[in-house]
Amino acid sequence: MRKLGLIAGAGALPVTLAQQCRAVGRPVFVIRLKGIADAAAMQPFDGVDVGLAELGKCIKALKAAGCETVCLAGVVKRPDWAALKPDLRGVKAIAGAIRAARGGDDALLRFLVGEFESEGFVVEGAHEIVADLTLPSGALGRVAPTADQMADIQKAFVVAGEIGRMDIGQGAVVCDGLVLALEAQEGTDAMLTRCAGLPRELRGEPGQPKGALAKRPKPTQDQRVDLPAIGVETVEGAFRAGLAGVVGEARKVLVLDRAGVVEAADRLGLWVYGLISEDP
Amino acid sequence: MRKLGLIAGAGALPVTLAQQCRAVGRPVFVIRLKGIADAAAMQPFDGVDVGLAELGKCIKALKAAGCETVCLAGVVKRPDWAALKPDLRGVKAIAGAIRAARGGDDALLRFLVGEFESEGFVVEGAHEIVADLTLPSGALGRVAPTADQMADIQKAFVVAGEIGRMDIGQGAVVCDGLVLALEAQEGTDAMLTRCAGLPRELRGEPGQPKGALAKRPKPTQDQRVDLPAIGVETVEGAFRAGLAGVVGEARKVLVLDRAGVVEAADRLGLWVYGLISEDP
Repeated sequence: MRKLGLIAGAGALPVTLAQQCRAVGRPVFVIRLKGIADAAAMQPFDGVDVGLAELGKCIKALKAAGCETVCLAGVVKRPDWAALKPDLRGVKAIAGAIRAARGGDDALLRFLVGEFESEGFVVEGAHEIVADLTLPSGALGRVAPTADQMADIQKAFVVAGEIGRMDIGQGAVVCDGLVLALEAQEGTDAMLTRCAGLPRELRGEPGQPKGALAKRPKPTQDQRVDLPAIGVETVEGAFRAGLAGVVGEARKVLVLDRAGVVEAADRLGLWVYGLISEDP
Repeated sequence: MRKLGLIAGAGALPVTLAQQCRAVGRPVFVIRLKGIADAAAMQPFDGVDVGLAELGKCIKALKAAGCETVCLAGVVKRPDWAALKPDLRGVKAIAGAIRAARGGDDALLRFLVGEFESEGFVVEGAHEIVADLTLPSGALGRVAPTADQMADIQKAFVVAGEIGRMDIGQGAVVCDGLVLALEAQEGTDAMLTRCAGLPRELRGEPGQPKGALAKRPKPTQDQRVDLPAIGVETVEGAFRAGLAGVVGEARKVLVLDRAGVVEAADRLGLWVYGLISEDP
């Protein structure tokens, strides 16, 4: 297996990927993004700390380590461009990145992927590295949606697709046919917290759950980067918001800590459900 | 002028309308929705307290008062249907209302308008009662958008139109081409508070404002009910979120307390801008 250069942002995904590489004997070298990556969790793996705009240092380190492929994984928020401390290669990239960012998140990520490709790297998606990292179709845990919950599942799935089509976000919450919330820059956890605070008449509650959170990738996005993810917090947040479950696009949504997600869903009585998109 | 039956929900709009009727000498009779309308502010006007599902009592009172037209104004959240206490006419309406509600807010409002029309009332929009209640085109106060702010204005306006087309909400926030937030059931004020809490890199701040809040009616909605509104809190919320201003669809967005809105916008250095839609 080709050595993987793992460009690690925040959150659990990069850790999962590095552990998986180790488990299957794939060599891995970690670019720990300074102040962003979980440095402690990444410490056991061979790697180096690199500032967000030190693209030259990053590429040199990857080449010196013998990496042929890279994977961009974990959360990286849009930076304050003016506050970045780039190296020479980074300066060249920043101008293009700022231009691309004006076209939206997709365009920015596509630009970054292109920067690594232009240096000869193959860019792999997280779901290509770990086989069962994505949501399968159907119910993931013990609980499955009932027939009368399917209307909310369907509507949430369609609406999440629409805001994705506009390059805005990857999530939507629907309850009794009413769209309670759409995700933009605040992220899924904040959206679910907001739903939990809506008037009781509009939503379910733990014990009397109803409604669905849907997560889908943007149809336009490069699916090697920034696939939406479902984790234990997603299931717990959906529970607190009074939802009956979480639906995701099958094979296009990452499941972080699969065993933990299944345990939480079974314990809280929620379904986590994979739906196959009919879009091309 | 025909006597107006004002069905009063929460907020300042019904108060403004009743005061305006009095100012121009138009007779008005107020249905104060129990637990919803601002009872104290409505007390000076002839009227009656009516429960949300007491449609029979409501219609009888309107006819006894000699009203030929009605206006539904102010905020009414979706009720907990099971907890309503309807009268006989109300029971008949609830079944239809629940069915209509499954089709979205528009369908529900359309159903309610139909109920009053079926009783022989003419339904008037708030903006038909008060001539200058809507946003004019161009800048409302002293501050006008700069040329480089127009891209955010345009994008926020388009995105707000798209989520309206899906019958989801009437507002969107865009900053530097990035959609920061979309409004669903949480309302505009909560959306602006959320924007103020986003990472500083994504937004402006008071003193260095950038970005726009857009408000538009849903293209599919009956424009006699539930037009979006801009009030003093909207301008203050936009200021706290670091936005440069508020754009609304000209003649299709209500301005509540026009003098107060202009004063707040001028004081805080924000523009309030009316844009004419090109849609048919």
